Amino acid sequence: MGNCGEIMSGFFLRQKNTNVRISLPAVCFVWQLAMIVLFGVFIRYDEESDAHWVEFRKSHNISSDIENDFYFRYPSFQDVHVMIFVGFGFLMTFLKRYSFGGVGFNFLIAAFGLQWALLMQGWFHALNPETGKITIGVESLINADFCCAGSLIAYGALLGKVSPVQLLVVTLFGVTLFAVEEYIILDLLHCRDAGGSMVIHAFGGYYGLAISWVLYRPNLHLSKRLNGSVYHSDVFAMIGTLFLWMFWPSFNSAITDHGDGQHRAAINTYLALASSVLTAVAISSMSQKKGKLDMVHIQNATLAGGVAMGTAAEFMITPYGSLIVGFFCGIISTCGYLAVTPFLEKYLKLQDTCGVHNLHAVPGMLGGFIGAIVAAAATEDVYGREGLINVFDFEGEFSTRSVGTQGGFQAAGTCVAIVFGLVGGAIVGCILRFPIWGDPADDNCYDDEVYWELPEDEETIPPVLEYNNHMIHKHQDISESNFSVDQS
Amino acid sequence: MGNCGEIMSGFFLRQKNTNVRISLPAVCFVWQLAMIVLFGVFIRYDEESDAHWVEFRKSHNISSDIENDFYFRYPSFQDVHVMIFVGFGFLMTFLKRYSFGGVGFNFLIAAFGLQWALLMQGWFHALNPETGKITIGVESLINADFCCAGSLIAYGALLGKVSPVQLLVVTLFGVTLFAVEEYIILDLLHCRDAGGSMVIHAFGGYYGLAISWVLYRPNLHLSKRLNGSVYHSDVFAMIGTLFLWMFWPSFNSAITDHGDGQHRAAINTYLALASSVLTAVAISSMSQKKGKLDMVHIQNATLAGGVAMGTAAEFMITPYGSLIVGFFCGIISTCGYLAVTPFLEKYLKLQDTCGVHNLHAVPGMLGGFIGAIVAAAATEDVYGREGLINVFDFEGEFSTRSVGTQGGFQAAGTCVAIVFGLVGGAIVGCILRFPIWGDPADDNCYDDEVYWELPEDEETIPPVLEYNNHMIHKHQDISESNFSVDQS
Amino acid sequence: MGNCGEIMSGFFLRQKNTNVRISLPAVCFVWQLAMIVLFGVFIRYDEESDAHWVEFRKSHNISSDIENDFYFRYPSFQDVHVMIFVGFGFLMTFLKRYSFGGVGFNFLIAAFGLQWALLMQGWFHALNPETGKITIGVESLINADFCCAGSLIAYGALLGKVSPVQLLVVTLFGVTLFAVEEYIILDLLHCRDAGGSMVIHAFGGYYGLAISWVLYRPNLHLSKRLNGSVYHSDVFAMIGTLFLWMFWPSFNSAITDHGDGQHRAAINTYLALASSVLTAVAISSMSQKKGKLDMVHIQNATLAGGVAMGTAAEFMITPYGSLIVGFFCGIISTCGYLAVTPFLEKYLKLQDTCGVHNLHAVPGMLGGFIGAIVAAAATEDVYGREGLINVFDFEGEFSTRSVGTQGGFQAAGTCVAIVFGLVGGAIVGCILRFPIWGDPADDNCYDDEVYWELPEDEETIPPVLEYNNHMIHKHQDISESNFSVDQS
Repeated sequence: MGNCGEIMSGFFLRQKNTNVRISLPAVCFVWQLAMIVLFGVFIRYDEESDAHWVEFRKSHNISSDIENDFYFRYPSFQDVHVMIFVGFGFLMTFLKRYSFGGVGFNFLIAAFGLQWALLMQGWFHALNPETGKITIGVESLINADFCCAGSLIAYGALLGKVSPVQLLVVTLFGVTLFAVEEYIILDLLHCRDAGGSMVIHAFGGYYGLAISWVLYRPNLHLSKRLNGSVYHSDVFAMIGTLFLWMFWPSFNSAITDHGDGQHRAAINTYLALASSVLTAVAISSMSQKKGKLDMVHIQNATLAGGVAMGTAAEFMITPYGSLIVGFFCGIISTCGYLAVTPFLEKYLKLQDTCGVHNLHAVPGMLGGFIGAIVAAAATEDVYGREGLINVFDFEGEFSTRSVGTQGGFQAAGTCVAIVFGLVGGAIVGCILRFPIWGDPADDNCYDDEVYWELPEDEETIPPVLEYNNHMIHKHQDISESNFSVDQS
Repeated sequence: MGNCGEIMSGFFLRQKNTNVRISLPAVCFVWQLAMIVLFGVFIRYDEESDAHWVEFRKSHNISSDIENDFYFRYPSFQDVHVMIFVGFGFLMTFLKRYSFGGVGFNFLIAAFGLQWALLMQGWFHALNPETGKITIGVESLINADFCCAGSLIAYGALLGKVSPVQLLVVTLFGVTLFAVEEYIILDLLHCRDAGGSMVIHAFGGYYGLAISWVLYRPNLHLSKRLNGSVYHSDVFAMIGTLFLWMFWPSFNSAITDHGDGQHRAAINTYLALASSVLTAVAISSMSQKKGKLDMVHIQNATLAGGVAMGTAAEFMITPYGSLIVGFFCGIISTCGYLAVTPFLEKYLKLQDTCGVHNLHAVPGMLGGFIGAIVAAAATEDVYGREGLINVFDFEGEFSTRSVGTQGGFQAAGTCVAIVFGLVGGAIVGCILRFPIWGDPADDNCYDDEVYWELPEDEETIPPVLEYNNHMIHKHQDISESNFSVDQS
Repeated sequence: MGNCGEIMSGFFLRQKNTNVRISLPAVCFVWQLAMIVLFGVFIRYDEESDAHWVEFRKSHNISSDIENDFYFRYPSFQDVHVMIFVGFGFLMTFLKRYSFGGVGFNFLIAAFGLQWALLMQGWFHALNPETGKITIGVESLINADFCCAGSLIAYGALLGKVSPVQLLVVTLFGVTLFAVEEYIILDLLHCRDAGGSMVIHAFGGYYGLAISWVLYRPNLHLSKRLNGSVYHSDVFAMIGTLFLWMFWPSFNSAITDHGDGQHRAAINTYLALASSVLTAVAISSMSQKKGKLDMVHIQNATLAGGVAMGTAAEFMITPYGSLIVGFFCGIISTCGYLAVTPFLEKYLKLQDTCGVHNLHAVPGMLGGFIGAIVAAAATEDVYGREGLINVFDFEGEFSTRSVGTQGGFQAAGTCVAIVFGLVGGAIVGCILRFPIWGDPADDNCYDDEVYWELPEDEETIPPVLEYNNHMIHKHQDISESNFSVDQS
């Protein structure tokens, strides 16, 4: 019967070669070796992580080791690290038969991405022109994790439809584009964006959407049986949701100014997230005939407040301002899952597995504009004279910039992020269309079977022979799964 | 057959209306809007999270940003945050078909509760009489999380038997009562209770028990088939147990004094918890004919040591004193699960889903009295002159209080917490008996089907038609579940 | 039929008594009481966790409470704590029917082990000769957790084949041996080993392997049906993997020097781990005909870089040096799973359930030698004069030691760790062969049924009667499991 299925599926469907036995190891080895060489040439410890610190400390009159940036940022770094690997990873385990791919490929691409990010961000921000070296410390690690987040968001739109080799390509270009747009937005336009509403979420969201649009699969309905959750996979996804939700205050405060900057960013994000939960629940319940809640909304839209506070969290947006942002973003995100994602799929031919449009692209864009408005509304009265300079970094060549101008530049920065995401994603999508990457066939998406050795399992989803009249689904090792009805 | 079941269940059982499509969104929206308005009127940043910090710091001769309270408390705050959302949330996923409700409603009520707590606790403890404003910082966030914990504990007693709207009401009143009893215990009686044995656990436990007692369901056995775990749901619950267990030292040390206070509280809690594990395992094994362990005990009773150290952890209880506390509380809690919970259900008509009586109410009460004894036994020799003043805050109007008196007040505080829990819970329980809240029928408890859109699932628990002679269980969407026996 | 199975299995197999109803509670109670007595005699708070701190601080001119070691190390401590309980615990949930035992027994033995470790390590390192007391603080808690890690690693080799009583014996001796070898390596040989490549991983790995070798079970194939994963158990194991992976930088930096020491150790570990992921994926994919990935490799070999950096992380190994270490250890570890574990089982009669040989023993040993090489290559140019003294602690009697000599001692230390592991493990293995410990029979391994009350479960693995011609597998409560095929 396995044979029969194989033959018949050969008749009806383009048979894709998903064997990545050469391409995946080759990419991993070559790129990892390249990282080693480039790190050897460029990357060094900064003065706070170098063994000369003890001398540096004395010569700079730093009274205590506790003044090392490590103690300001390491707890936040670890929270961000958990968000990247457990948060994003488990959020993507919700599919019934793609949990290995969700958490495993997330792990792979983040592990590569953070190395490449240290180099790319280093070249743009931390290259010492005299020595030609990049020096790294704990803040570099946080930034590298942030940089990966852009590509992981893009993965959310592509989940289940691409090969691990394609994902590594998405990450290579994603990190590169990220470093460039971040340089333009933060350095040239002098925007503030500590939690990355613009540079991470708007960019990453639109990057993933553009790739997914180019990779549109007209026959994806052939994999529809696997594009959904089961009871336990939804509980696994809640692990991801909660770690993202809980640690988002650390995300938005990880690289803000020491002292009040970190403190305020954490409070604002905490409040916006709480507010999102209530409105996401409200809209989810309203949308169903009997008022039942939908796990997709709880898993995703509750996080929208954190995304939207990425820019404004360090500003004096006020506690109630944070609640208002969360209030509306919870509504907008849930409505996105209800109405916009189906619309995009039907009319714009955009297949967005995790709904990154509603969780990252739109709230990120809104977050950018909210940041612009809050910046433009800043006054010396609210911030204090020194506070205003500190928060917006009005120093050096920017010492004469007004808050109104700053607001304009923040808005411009948001547009730059979106354009980079859309254009970059379209180009990368075209690259990924070459038939060399080992991506799955349309009837084989959302299936760990393609790239993972699966355990023989009591719970294996049996092949659905009668699912679709004009197709027979081939399922490997069919004789080993428990399949009492058909065998009798 | 779906129809048939519906008709027959209509004959035999009161059909409850569990549709929350209007009430749940209404409560969420109205209360969230009220929060925004109240935050707008009352809540502001404190001096350590305000942009004026840079000026405040200089004017107060604070040498470094690292002296900002953020760096003393933020790591502990994040641990507490994980306990509230992942710890409590996943601990309540143990039921085979109520994991969505366990983790999801926990998420909802904590997100609402923490906002309301910032206001309630602010009015009682942080209201500036001149400006009429409440100022918040990282310690406020920790206290808000603590305040939610009281209501989440109460949820443990109610798990599976109430609607999300009822839970929001439980939280609204729970947070309010908490703020009042906390004000009486900490401010008027001047008790010390940094980890909340009294104000959190004794209060929360008895609050939940009293509500559950008022909401007694005589026919709850009709849902007995769902009042239990399956293999994987027990593993999910261990995620909750372990995050609670690991981070309990942070819980008990999060708001204790800077320096030795936080340090000692963490050590004492760490030790008491370790000791609890061994005695919980011992009693669990002894109680079963073949010495097998019961997951219920491992998931819950291992935590009793942390609950019971909530008051005394910051005192000089000594490391071996901590071990002794854990030793006995592990025994008492496990015996509670073995003997007291069944007794309460049979004779006192008290249905306590998670056994909060054994994990929170009793260990919390004991923790209050342990704190009283340890306080009364304090000496200047052990604490040092300044240490004694510091630990018990014998300053201002309390500068002449003796340790003996302090012990008496600590014991009185424990009683206040219990009384508030019992009386408050009884009143809230009566409110929840109105037939307007959308709670499930007696044969429909412990079932996510009622409030959640469930995925079509290979693993759906099939309806048990022959389960009970005088009842037919209605199961929605029966035709979609795999149900080979009946269909053949 | 239950009876029939019982009788027949009595004929064919040695029937083991796995009832631990007396031994397990007895060991737990007696040992916990012993801990209380010994803590009463020996353990006190150190000056940073004692209430006299406020006076100590003033008399020692410490300007701020933030200088308390608590604030340097508590965030790292909590990360290590998560690794011990959730990391190790969930990594061992991968077996389809031993998740309770994996996470539950891990919990039990770590909770005992950390108490015993505080005493053993205290006697060797922190005993005040004048007072006869051991004083503890946050660094002691980290070291106690580390000490447990050695025994938890050993548990990985024994998973599913031993009783909880045996595990407590393994831990009692494991912690004792650990404290002795640690004393020899760190104090007498004056090695540096902050992340424990030698003292934790090489020791723990070889300790477990030696025990497993002595406890060789020739008929373990009778339990083969349970020695594997199911889909969801592999996802649970990824929780363990990721928390270990994410927090390993904290593990290797938790007890290094304040300031640059902690900072550099975190960076180096972060990089080595990232590099391991790529090479583990590459080898895993290459090893399978169609390039599919194996979850065993992703769950384990990705961590090898962290193990191997345990000694060298605090040295100036350079960022690219860290990447190189991770690169090779990812390869070696994955190849170990592919080739060495089967070889060991077939030819050396060594049954290593989790493959600790490949994840801990070999990378730990390599880490020790890498540390030796990096130490020997240290120069004053790279470290600075003071830096060199700081990093290698060339003070007091060791002030004249050269880096070359240090390298030699580091290598010698690695050998000491391995010898302690092998010899200690062989002896403990012999003790565990006495027929009094309640271990399972060869056909009953990897089964939670033996030591846990299991929920009645839709998903219960049914007994496989035709599995092996000469054996009948007895399954308790057979009538309660869903068993349609055989019953018809």
